[in-house]
Amino acid sequence: MKNYKIVVQYDGTKYKGWQMQRSTDLTIQGKLQHILESICNEPVEVIGSGRTDAGVHAKGQVANFHMNWNNSEEELLFRINGYLPNDIAVISLEEVEERFHSRFNAKDKIYRYRIHTSAISDVFERKFQYHLEEKLNVEAMREAAEYCCGEHDFTSFCGNRKFKKSAVRTIYSITITEVGREIQIDYCGDGFLQNMVRILTGTLIEVGRGERRPEDMKDIIEGKNRDLAGYTAPAEGLCLLEVHY
Amino acid sequence: MKNYKIVVQYDGTKYKGWQMQRSTDLTIQGKLQHILESICNEPVEVIGSGRTDAGVHAKGQVANFHMNWNNSEEELLFRINGYLPNDIAVISLEEVEERFHSRFNAKDKIYRYRIHTSAISDVFERKFQYHLEEKLNVEAMREAAEYCCGEHDFTSFCGNRKFKKSAVRTIYSITITEVGREIQIDYCGDGFLQNMVRILTGTLIEVGRGERRPEDMKDIIEGKNRDLAGYTAPAEGLCLLEVHY
Repeated sequence: MKNYKIVVQYDGTKYKGWQMQRSTDLTIQGKLQHILESICNEPVEVIGSGRTDAGVHAKGQVANFHMNWNNSEEELLFRINGYLPNDIAVISLEEVEERFHSRFNAKDKIYRYRIHTSAISDVFERKFQYHLEEKLNVEAMREAAEYCCGEHDFTSFCGNRKFKKSAVRTIYSITITEVGREIQIDYCGDGFLQNMVRILTGTLIEVGRGERRPEDMKDIIEGKNRDLAGYTAPAEGLCLLEVHY
Repeated sequence: MKNYKIVVQYDGTKYKGWQMQRSTDLTIQGKLQHILESICNEPVEVIGSGRTDAGVHAKGQVANFHMNWNNSEEELLFRINGYLPNDIAVISLEEVEERFHSRFNAKDKIYRYRIHTSAISDVFERKFQYHLEEKLNVEAMREAAEYCCGEHDFTSFCGNRKFKKSAVRTIYSITITEVGREIQIDYCGDGFLQNMVRILTGTLIEVGRGERRPEDMKDIIEGKNRDLAGYTAPAEGLCLLEVHY
């Protein structure tokens, strides 16, 4: 058996997220696994670096799988892409050492959240942005974001209220950039809880609107209570950019 | 009555083209006209710089219309975009002199045709590219394109076989660029006949495949017969980039 690492891009608009579900065929992992199994006629498990929610996109999701394959990497890549729908693409494939594990070995991940703030639609990017059409105080958002950086218990920003494991994560940086009529928030961290990036974004937006003060972030984090944080920003604005090993 | 010039962007995927039709509400001109009429409660005629086919996109379509409006340009722009679906946007609006006519006064137009040549889908741009997944000889295509530049009778490249008016047009330049896994063909000319950019592109693709020689373009042009040219490349790869005055 060989171990292959792949980098996957997807337009998540119509998918129920990364993780396979019994109830639907519309997951990225499900599509990939189904294709690999039909190529090698054996069960294959595709291990993703992490789950992405329904509707979330990826430019650099990483996964790995073990498979019996005697042909070249190029041939396997070509076969996979030949079967994939055109809103999912494997952009690279390489054999890696046996023990490489895309989730356990991930050192950090970068997510980008895109907010469109103008009343004029960006017709070509609209499916990959959250249309807010409001003026936000970006300086206040930057100040608030600073409180989230570092190692914290992010229970207040976890969408799964029954989450039992440690909610301690480290955010290395949150960079907020204005690009034309768009605000981009890049989150780099060692791992993210369920909905964490979207709840962080919703809370930062509430700061940007003036509904919360930047320094409120401190109490929100310390309170370890989901009810203290802001709303969950919608999935369509979020994209998993890169996973580093 | 004031005369307003607007620049319009649209994702043409679901539209039946620019020009209003009695049979459908799904045209760009129809959407704009309907909105303007509901703003001013009077008939309004939206004059486009030219028609775009069903499925063709625009980043810089230009149009003008005469309208009674006593408020600011900003307010009118805001009102129009408030009513438009998010796959159409008016990105600028300004009052122009009474006699400005977006079609008659247009000096040149730039269209871009995008061909995706890899088996790996570009998941974020796929709706704005023609998926060809073939190796094309770009040098041969450039050579062929040279024959099309200048003033010619483009009857061979006109999709309307019953076209009675002069088919003489001037192409100022055709620039073919390889950008990653994509071939972009930019056409700059004083005007284009129905389907002309798409038929030119289909013919250049046939040259790129080696099915025709670059120098065949000369005979195709001189023959003034649609049957001599290549196929009509699909609409989704085409975008009207700019109109100059």
